Amino acid sequence: MSKVITSREEDYSAWYNDIVRKAQLADHSAVRGCMVIRPYGWGIWENMRDQLDKMFKETGHVNASFPLFIPKSFLSKEAEHVEGFAKECAVVTHHRLMNAPDGSGVIVDPTAKLEEELIVRPTSETIIWNTYKDWIKSYRDLPLLINQWANVVRWEMRTRLFLRTTEFHWQEGHTAHSTDTEAVEETLTILEIYKKFAEEYMAMPVITGVKSANERFAGAVDTYTIEALMQDGKALQAGTSHFLGQNFAKAFDVKYLNENQKEEYVWATSWGVSTRLIGGLIMTHSDDLGLVLPPKLAPLKVVIVPIPKPDAIIDEKADMIIAALKAKGISVKYDTDAKKRPGFKFAEYEMRGVPIRLGLGKRDIEKGQVEVARRDTGEKKSVPLDNIGDYIENLLEEIQTNLFNKAKKFRDDRISKTDDFEEFKSILEGKGGFISAHWDGTTETEKKIKELTKATIRCIPLNNEKEAGKCILTGNASEQRVLFAKSY
Amino acid sequence: MSKVITSREEDYSAWYNDIVRKAQLADHSAVRGCMVIRPYGWGIWENMRDQLDKMFKETGHVNASFPLFIPKSFLSKEAEHVEGFAKECAVVTHHRLMNAPDGSGVIVDPTAKLEEELIVRPTSETIIWNTYKDWIKSYRDLPLLINQWANVVRWEMRTRLFLRTTEFHWQEGHTAHSTDTEAVEETLTILEIYKKFAEEYMAMPVITGVKSANERFAGAVDTYTIEALMQDGKALQAGTSHFLGQNFAKAFDVKYLNENQKEEYVWATSWGVSTRLIGGLIMTHSDDLGLVLPPKLAPLKVVIVPIPKPDAIIDEKADMIIAALKAKGISVKYDTDAKKRPGFKFAEYEMRGVPIRLGLGKRDIEKGQVEVARRDTGEKKSVPLDNIGDYIENLLEEIQTNLFNKAKKFRDDRISKTDDFEEFKSILEGKGGFISAHWDGTTETEKKIKELTKATIRCIPLNNEKEAGKCILTGNASEQRVLFAKSY
Repeated sequence: MSKVITSREEDYSAWYNDIVRKAQLADHSAVRGCMVIRPYGWGIWENMRDQLDKMFKETGHVNASFPLFIPKSFLSKEAEHVEGFAKECAVVTHHRLMNAPDGSGVIVDPTAKLEEELIVRPTSETIIWNTYKDWIKSYRDLPLLINQWANVVRWEMRTRLFLRTTEFHWQEGHTAHSTDTEAVEETLTILEIYKKFAEEYMAMPVITGVKSANERFAGAVDTYTIEALMQDGKALQAGTSHFLGQNFAKAFDVKYLNENQKEEYVWATSWGVSTRLIGGLIMTHSDDLGLVLPPKLAPLKVVIVPIPKPDAIIDEKADMIIAALKAKGISVKYDTDAKKRPGFKFAEYEMRGVPIRLGLGKRDIEKGQVEVARRDTGEKKSVPLDNIGDYIENLLEEIQTNLFNKAKKFRDDRISKTDDFEEFKSILEGKGGFISAHWDGTTETEKKIKELTKATIRCIPLNNEKEAGKCILTGNASEQRVLFAKSY
Repeated sequence: MSKVITSREEDYSAWYNDIVRKAQLADHSAVRGCMVIRPYGWGIWENMRDQLDKMFKETGHVNASFPLFIPKSFLSKEAEHVEGFAKECAVVTHHRLMNAPDGSGVIVDPTAKLEEELIVRPTSETIIWNTYKDWIKSYRDLPLLINQWANVVRWEMRTRLFLRTTEFHWQEGHTAHSTDTEAVEETLTILEIYKKFAEEYMAMPVITGVKSANERFAGAVDTYTIEALMQDGKALQAGTSHFLGQNFAKAFDVKYLNENQKEEYVWATSWGVSTRLIGGLIMTHSDDLGLVLPPKLAPLKVVIVPIPKPDAIIDEKADMIIAALKAKGISVKYDTDAKKRPGFKFAEYEMRGVPIRLGLGKRDIEKGQVEVARRDTGEKKSVPLDNIGDYIENLLEEIQTNLFNKAKKFRDDRISKTDDFEEFKSILEGKGGFISAHWDGTTETEKKIKELTKATIRCIPLNNEKEAGKCILTGNASEQRVLFAKSY
């Protein structure tokens, strides 16, 4: 492992890639745009998944599994959906390979062409609503609150590890309701779960809001979003929750008998977060020494490094610390590799973002102490070995809180308000971040602003204040400010 | 839900399908051979996954994620592997759809043909060993103990829910070692985990052994297996663990520098169990009333049915029972649906295999009792409400043990020994099960026996006794008995 990564100032994009690669989170694979998520990166995803899964189950959701493949014709059934999702995708056309007659290897067997092509799911609304048709007959079958943890494929032209990859992992919730009110409530319940997860577990502050028509999910009536801010001043859409109205129910003819024995179409929602969150996590907290992880999601919370190397006395104290931490459910590793110097190990665990490092040497032990180093602040401190378990437990909480507060201050400092388009542009070119500005409500203006500045409307914040004003671009009447930003 | 399912005696195969469908474990989907795993079925898989994952992690394994797609050329790199896996598979040839010029829908864009076709992974040895090439440089990088939980696709011609589907879910472990001894040890460690899981959690007795050359995994030096026996007397291969030698290391040129700075090829294993286990679970324990689940894997362990319907007095006692069970981590549901009669509910929970049903009526409560019904034996008993938590906890263990013992007796009663080919055939046509018989060790004989009887060699049991004898078919010299059976 190299000690040095590109600094953010030098090249933000190279810094990001260096962290992903050198902290061993993910690698590019032999398949264009697909990544290998390495054990350390997957460990973070497992922690995210377990926590979110718990929150979904606590709110009455259950998991299921729907097919990887979607018949091509399904995509065409919802008019807007097909425009959004049927374009760049992986198409299965054959089901057999054969030995090449010339002995050069294997080739596609031309006789094994599928009658109808299958699409590797880019999202599952169509195959799921085709299934719900069989499951939903009466109001007593509703609501149906189902989630799946799955891989999906979108044939992206420009990919970036975690942020935009051809294959990615996510959860997709698909719920069915008897009323529009209940479906909208569900959409917002999930949005609140996403916000809570982002802020309390990822320590990543987010703004909740609704998307403009132009940024809406293909097939949705309304798309709600959580938007985070990265250290380069760009926004990251971190999760979306869609109110689908009756669009998919109508496309797949899913009706139920209500309490008065009358047939009605079902109301729907869908919602998802993906491995993209790992990209957001990296860019929210990390620094020029490498990855920084919030304790609640760190696969390894504490590492003990013997100074200068393991021996009987140090081992004994390390075992004591390990026992104290394990009793509290805190993951800990004692790095006994005698071939690596402490300085090398320090750099390695800094790179990997382990929240707390304990340096344990004989002098410390004689004084009944251990050196505690925080990854978030770099602060080092000698701490009594008595009660080390409680100390670490509290410190992990302090680190979690500190990371959130720091990220929140960074974000809050980058929410600007302006009524002047020149200032709008100069903010975007300067510190970036969110800009609260008036907009005339048309897609045309939104597209024009994007063309001129690369900024898009990230969202119309929930409970947005109404305020009469003039559109930042056209000067036309506006009834509220919306949040613009450049984004990933 | 219909009250009646086909009996095993009447039509074993229809009985199996009825249970899968009526216990709401899985459905056929709109995509040929792919299933929808419903929430109840997926809940069983989650319990299996969590337990196995714990056992893998306790033995030093970590999870990662490798691409869904495999470049076609990778499959050809290991000679035997390509023969086994490159035939019936899903082939991605294009990456874009377009609107049909005649407005008839979407069609494959002929200009978006991939340079090299991608195969949806049927198993991941090739893509993983291509990655390991970058990760393994020195003996210090070994062993590499990685597992992934994933979906895979094999284009099966005849599919059966859970037992053989085009897409299925599994875990696949892929480990790399510096010596053959260590790799073989790993293979056997995993086999032992599979056996322990099958017997202690699934309550499904298994025989461990090694496969004959003919039944070996394509690319393996040795394939170890756990073999279970289903109620129709057929064997089910429930999990396999492969010692791959240096075959994949050589195919993908994966070498490491040993402690003496000499380059050597790496030794490999791979191993997996899949959603097929759910099929095994169903066919091991279920009866003509429906599904029977071992408590350790049941998504719902206890159901409380109010007799005849909920009211304040019954609710109060139910809440008390729920609190007592939840305190012990025992999942429980109180079925308060006032529109269904108790008898209907009884049949429903029997169908779904809930291990314990509590019938709670006012008369019971007056006597300080509750009616406890076991799904495994059908036995009903009035039990004091005091200490109901302990009672249920013990009863769940008793049910778990009883299911295993019953299945083991069934299996043991169907291990026959014979030296006569006519008897061999008549056992297969009669009670079925495993037959311990002499075999001359040739693939030719094995194939001939299969042709004549449909039985295959399920395994050569571990620590098999050496015993000179004559092959059951050819009369040629044999040094040991092996286990034959018809199988899934």
